[in-house]
Amino acid sequence: MKETVNVGILGFGTVGSGTARILLENRDLLSVRAGCDVVLKWVCDKDTVTDRGVELPDGVLTDKIDNLLDDPELDIFVELIGGIEPARSFILRAIEKGKHVVTANKALLAAHGLEIFSAAAEKGVEVAFEASVGGGIPCIKGLKEGLVANHISTIIGIMNGTANYILTRMTRYGDTFQEVLKDAQRLGYAEADPTYDVEGIDTAHKLVIMSTIAFGQKVTLDQVYTEGISRITPTDIAFASELGFIVKLLAIGRLSNGQIEVRVHPTMIPEDHLLSHVQGAYNAVYFMGDAVGKVMMYGMGAGQMPTGSAVVADIVDIARNISVGSANRVPSLGMPFASLKEAEIKPMDKVICKYYFRFMVKDSPGVLSKISGVLGENGISIQSVVQKGRDSEGAVPIVMVTHEAEEARVNAALDTISHIDFVLDQPLTIRIEDLDSLEDSL
Amino acid sequence: MKETVNVGILGFGTVGSGTARILLENRDLLSVRAGCDVVLKWVCDKDTVTDRGVELPDGVLTDKIDNLLDDPELDIFVELIGGIEPARSFILRAIEKGKHVVTANKALLAAHGLEIFSAAAEKGVEVAFEASVGGGIPCIKGLKEGLVANHISTIIGIMNGTANYILTRMTRYGDTFQEVLKDAQRLGYAEADPTYDVEGIDTAHKLVIMSTIAFGQKVTLDQVYTEGISRITPTDIAFASELGFIVKLLAIGRLSNGQIEVRVHPTMIPEDHLLSHVQGAYNAVYFMGDAVGKVMMYGMGAGQMPTGSAVVADIVDIARNISVGSANRVPSLGMPFASLKEAEIKPMDKVICKYYFRFMVKDSPGVLSKISGVLGENGISIQSVVQKGRDSEGAVPIVMVTHEAEEARVNAALDTISHIDFVLDQPLTIRIEDLDSLEDSL
Repeated sequence: MKETVNVGILGFGTVGSGTARILLENRDLLSVRAGCDVVLKWVCDKDTVTDRGVELPDGVLTDKIDNLLDDPELDIFVELIGGIEPARSFILRAIEKGKHVVTANKALLAAHGLEIFSAAAEKGVEVAFEASVGGGIPCIKGLKEGLVANHISTIIGIMNGTANYILTRMTRYGDTFQEVLKDAQRLGYAEADPTYDVEGIDTAHKLVIMSTIAFGQKVTLDQVYTEGISRITPTDIAFASELGFIVKLLAIGRLSNGQIEVRVHPTMIPEDHLLSHVQGAYNAVYFMGDAVGKVMMYGMGAGQMPTGSAVVADIVDIARNISVGSANRVPSLGMPFASLKEAEIKPMDKVICKYYFRFMVKDSPGVLSKISGVLGENGISIQSVVQKGRDSEGAVPIVMVTHEAEEARVNAALDTISHIDFVLDQPLTIRIEDLDSLEDSL
Repeated sequence: MKETVNVGILGFGTVGSGTARILLENRDLLSVRAGCDVVLKWVCDKDTVTDRGVELPDGVLTDKIDNLLDDPELDIFVELIGGIEPARSFILRAIEKGKHVVTANKALLAAHGLEIFSAAAEKGVEVAFEASVGGGIPCIKGLKEGLVANHISTIIGIMNGTANYILTRMTRYGDTFQEVLKDAQRLGYAEADPTYDVEGIDTAHKLVIMSTIAFGQKVTLDQVYTEGISRITPTDIAFASELGFIVKLLAIGRLSNGQIEVRVHPTMIPEDHLLSHVQGAYNAVYFMGDAVGKVMMYGMGAGQMPTGSAVVADIVDIARNISVGSANRVPSLGMPFASLKEAEIKPMDKVICKYYFRFMVKDSPGVLSKISGVLGENGISIQSVVQKGRDSEGAVPIVMVTHEAEEARVNAALDTISHIDFVLDQPLTIRIEDLDSLEDSL
């Protein structure tokens, strides 16, 4: 029974200062709950001057990483600097030194997770990463432990607050993508370079992590089909609404017949589905399990204190294990690293979806018949068509919703259509997920 | 390192057979995840004849409880018979014999939880009860572990599927309470005696459990203010809708200035709040924590397989602890039993809410002024009033929404008003919770 557990944080930025604040302010509460004293022994940052609004006890702040890594009393190394290097090297060194690791670094785990988890398994230390997905939502613990009884067949996540904020404002006020993005950058909700958030890359990182755990297969980042929201227009959102749909940037993981679909793209979902009501910077993760049915978890997907809440939950979890001597009680990925299988990914070409298409065309006779002809030749059948008045430049949107079709056929058809001379722009595609809109029991 | 963990289930009814099915069908998966073999050694039921649709291995089914309690190899005793006795005695005997306990019995825990947890703490065994609240939703683990970093200030739960099903149908189709109840009974969603479900008692049981954990105080059932939904009419739901509200049966736990509010009653909440979209037999629990902010968890609140999923999650949790020798790693109530404080409950009289009132009156001059006069005398100020045409018997509903008022003053006013001769019926009251309707960031 160890009575004190020592924690060192690398990175005194937003999440690092939130984590430090919780460890200091809620220390009594945490000690009672954890059954041991959780002590913030080190905070390491290159910048030891800037005021972070958290008063650290004397001697805690350092700019020397070796103070943490070489401290034999340090039990838990918390990496909160983000990015690939030097985060990866520091984590591997900490593991090598026998320290447990907590990280919020989804980019690193998505790119080098298997290396890190394998090193940790060999060394018998834990790597915990609740904060890497869904901010403060305890969705990794929920999946690994709360839903342990289940074969998970589906994960659907709204996992990027910036993208969801932009889509929510576009939906609510009819703003354009560029307008909202500019506002979001001004307000600090979006980075100066928003690529990771709006192009779905950050969401893909998180999907790699969640689907590895859910399906017990080693999913890698290059296996995830990734498409962002920057081409979506208020016109598309208005058409979606007419059709009874809301547009969300979704992470979708699905296991069927031993194959996994892993894809991130803007998606139309029924407007009366609970996920449609996840607004603004909030995130949500939705699971389908063979026993539990549908479960959803919702909360702030980012931010100093919500993310700090998840980091501290991991720290306490490991502290409890250290205190009673049960490290690796729950393996990092929900099952022993050696039991994970290689991922068998369903090629995107074979994925079957319903689709929303928007074609911008010159309004001339025969347009509709030509387009629908190409779709028909590719075996894609149309469920509904909407055609509206032309815009100022004489371009008319033709909007179609299809029945289920295979991605390969859709790509072939769209390639042909985009080369027709009256088609003015690359066709815009939004996949449709017909999530059960009414709850089962009604 | 123990390689086999033996489980005995008492009660081969709906949840018992669901639990047995998961343990048998997902045994390989569970063993990989748990790190040890989880074996269903006993299922005990008085009725060993009825076919439950689950094929048990030979020698597992018994009608003798002593086969379980006296088996030195039995590690986990799973109580799924429900009710107070003999469940309580069997659980206490199992604890006495040093067995860990898993139960879904909220009525028992709400009435005798402190006795059971105290006995378990003394004996050093675990009592786990994820299935007692929110069916398959991992809300107890989420609260105890996922949100461990937080001082929880508020719990709001839709915790009874039957009541939520009835209210959802009344809202969607304008049916009366009695009509839906009859249907629900025919379809098996409601018991022959629906009192526990529709009068809020079952919800109160669950609130006792959740608020004890969330606030670290020993809340007892008699401290919970409990009011059901049987007096709600389609008229009230229609008025709520006009005012922008949805009516839900909520469990509300709130800690402020060291005092706890614990109350269960029909409540109007903003129709654009996420909880308003929890439909049918689904449940949801909403937490506010000082670090994490708002978190919601959603899923099926009852049923064979969802509840079985939660029971098995508890079994695996304990199996992991047995396997690595870390029993009581997380105390049953989130902190050591000895650290729980006596509950300090805010008297219901002192609770402050907004209110919806419906008065059924004879339509005669001066009615409105008389009623609003009484409210004014009691310091209750009115936010809005709606008066509509009379019904066939000449009774007219007057509907009022108040600003915040203290419960004691409201009761005094309503008592006076109900004695006015033109007031035809006991006034109907629905409390209003102004949960933030728009998400923070928009």
